[in-house]
Amino acid sequence: MVQRNRNMARLQAGYLFPEINRRKNALLARKPDAKIISLGIGDTTQPLTPHISKALENCGRALGTAEGYSGYGAEQGNPQLRAAIANKIYGGKVKPEEVFVSDGAKCDCGRLQLLFGPDVSVAVQDPSYPVYVDGSVILGQTGDFDSKAQQFDGIAYMTCTPENDFFPDLGKVPRTDLVYFCSPNNPTGAVATREQLAELIEFAKSNRSIILFDAAYSVFVQDPSLPRSIFELDGAREVALEINSFSKSAGFTGVRLGWTVVPAELKFDDGTPVSKDWTRIVTTLFNGASNIVQQGGLAALDDEGLAEIRRLVSYYLENARIIKSALSEMGYVTYGGENSPYIWTRMEGKGSWEAFEEILETCHVVTTPGAGFGPAGEGFIRFSSFGRRGDVEEAVGRLRRTMRH
Amino acid sequence: MVQRNRNMARLQAGYLFPEINRRKNALLARKPDAKIISLGIGDTTQPLTPHISKALENCGRALGTAEGYSGYGAEQGNPQLRAAIANKIYGGKVKPEEVFVSDGAKCDCGRLQLLFGPDVSVAVQDPSYPVYVDGSVILGQTGDFDSKAQQFDGIAYMTCTPENDFFPDLGKVPRTDLVYFCSPNNPTGAVATREQLAELIEFAKSNRSIILFDAAYSVFVQDPSLPRSIFELDGAREVALEINSFSKSAGFTGVRLGWTVVPAELKFDDGTPVSKDWTRIVTTLFNGASNIVQQGGLAALDDEGLAEIRRLVSYYLENARIIKSALSEMGYVTYGGENSPYIWTRMEGKGSWEAFEEILETCHVVTTPGAGFGPAGEGFIRFSSFGRRGDVEEAVGRLRRTMRH
Repeated sequence: MVQRNRNMARLQAGYLFPEINRRKNALLARKPDAKIISLGIGDTTQPLTPHISKALENCGRALGTAEGYSGYGAEQGNPQLRAAIANKIYGGKVKPEEVFVSDGAKCDCGRLQLLFGPDVSVAVQDPSYPVYVDGSVILGQTGDFDSKAQQFDGIAYMTCTPENDFFPDLGKVPRTDLVYFCSPNNPTGAVATREQLAELIEFAKSNRSIILFDAAYSVFVQDPSLPRSIFELDGAREVALEINSFSKSAGFTGVRLGWTVVPAELKFDDGTPVSKDWTRIVTTLFNGASNIVQQGGLAALDDEGLAEIRRLVSYYLENARIIKSALSEMGYVTYGGENSPYIWTRMEGKGSWEAFEEILETCHVVTTPGAGFGPAGEGFIRFSSFGRRGDVEEAVGRLRRTMRH
Repeated sequence: MVQRNRNMARLQAGYLFPEINRRKNALLARKPDAKIISLGIGDTTQPLTPHISKALENCGRALGTAEGYSGYGAEQGNPQLRAAIANKIYGGKVKPEEVFVSDGAKCDCGRLQLLFGPDVSVAVQDPSYPVYVDGSVILGQTGDFDSKAQQFDGIAYMTCTPENDFFPDLGKVPRTDLVYFCSPNNPTGAVATREQLAELIEFAKSNRSIILFDAAYSVFVQDPSLPRSIFELDGAREVALEINSFSKSAGFTGVRLGWTVVPAELKFDDGTPVSKDWTRIVTTLFNGASNIVQQGGLAALDDEGLAEIRRLVSYYLENARIIKSALSEMGYVTYGGENSPYIWTRMEGKGSWEAFEEILETCHVVTTPGAGFGPAGEGFIRFSSFGRRGDVEEAVGRLRRTMRH
């Protein structure tokens, strides 16, 4: 018979968000009338903006005409969209042919893990987005799960806590082939400064490592002194690739569109450009993002679309301000929530899942337990600012009534 | 430094279709005025049908409203669409929860290879769709390329030629964990009979293998005695999963939508349901097909959509008839093209790439060289019937003038 993939067997429990959903549904089974509000998963709630919605509508109509129909596109993406991303997001700092359009950052994470294969060693921020670790396990890049440490053997966990300003002490991090780094960070909301990114690049350069820089929340960076892309820093093109997404900027969580930038200078030890193998992965096991969705992405990057996105981002950032200031007034210590949609909150004296259950049970508010992002997230709760204003205000009201610290 | 993934280094040349595109562009560089017609890649050319186009248009508009907006959906797919596929395509023979909606068959092939991991052994039809072999190589399921045999070590190639009626002599095929089987076949156009599929299921059962049944062209089966799904056969649910797509039926090659059926009875040797690990793969490394695209899929499966699809399929099948009868009149021996959009043509005395180059050079018609699908495809050319009627007629006229056998 066919043996189960031993890498799959190594994974722990379910992927975090389905697990949270199961617990929410368990509450609903007991209390069918509970008006649950989610500040959990980073799921956008505001409608697509008019200009972008119109572009999808127009493309849907055009695909029904001989002139507007298109079949297979380039797996790497619509050339116009690749150029728009290179110019509008990166101000020309990357070339269109270095931009690979995808159906989202999560999917590209999986394909990148496939690109590097089972023999690479990996470092992740702790806490971090679960896909980095789970995907590495699936690819066989790790050892078994150490249930005492709550870590996988063979992964270097770079602790990011308030004590080190959410930036790892790189002097203590062993050399690995790959270094995942997310800024603005999911889940902590921390944004790396230019100095910190310069240090990270230097670290990768001296270790001859490759940084997988996850910039999926870059559009939330409002402070002009903070970098939105690792490619704003010198030396990044030799050591980093960057993953990004339209999910949180244009509200495309369900529409599905993202991209990865692989600079020409990024190479393996035998001189093979990483982009050569990446092109092979993308053309062989991916078939391009949907043509209609890519038209939506193009609309999101013209002047009208960019202005709409700025307003959408402001809306969620105002939610973040409301949540953060309420938690602060209630006596909680919070991080993030300023150049990021996430507010990382210390729950003194409580475990993450315990705090999660308590908030769910007493306030009917779904959050995300910090421990779900790695052992250093224990004792924290992540509040997401993706929600309708009224729901956010209602949730904050319930927290104020029952959770006073 | 980071070593290149040795599995990537094992791959041969480029993925087939980008390679063909390069040769086409080389001709255009020499003869910029050449009016090239493609009967190569199976790329749909006819506009989306009105009802489906309208559904996309409506969803694009709705996503711009508070009521019509949706964020993340279930990674497994819109429940309505899963139910529609189970009922309309499979007549209830599979359950909605066994249907996993994807962004296309090619992408799901890659994820399935990831699901099974590096330690499985693999059998493929020879010739076959290149993604089976290339994806297996990328996952590390194979050995090195044997340039003399033009095969990868560690893959069982099941020869499918006119001599065995395009169905492998299973008595000579070694036991493997996975068996890829595509019917209607890409590239040969052969459709397995009920008896042949029953034999394949028995073979898998006695070997305790899993069949990855690729039914991406099932909608082209017109002969009611021929199976459109492996699940029409008894015993299939214990040994097979099935991959399918809206690409060729609804013209979604660029729109991107497909699905995979993983029956509850399909299990690993330790009793773990394959669908459990598949759910973990899909929820961890995929984020669902685009919501707007899934609305298009739903429209394609209601009565109006299904009627439109039948007309679209008839159009391409009439193209196939035109190409096949012309080639036959010219003295070529052809296969397929009746319950399949592909016509597999023997090019007596010529190598595939030689014949490809000759047709490209003299007729300015792009085809697909059979050798690109595996060593047993050598000496054949695949003609695709996906094209506009006028182009197909023009291409056939050019072939008649210059390629008389």
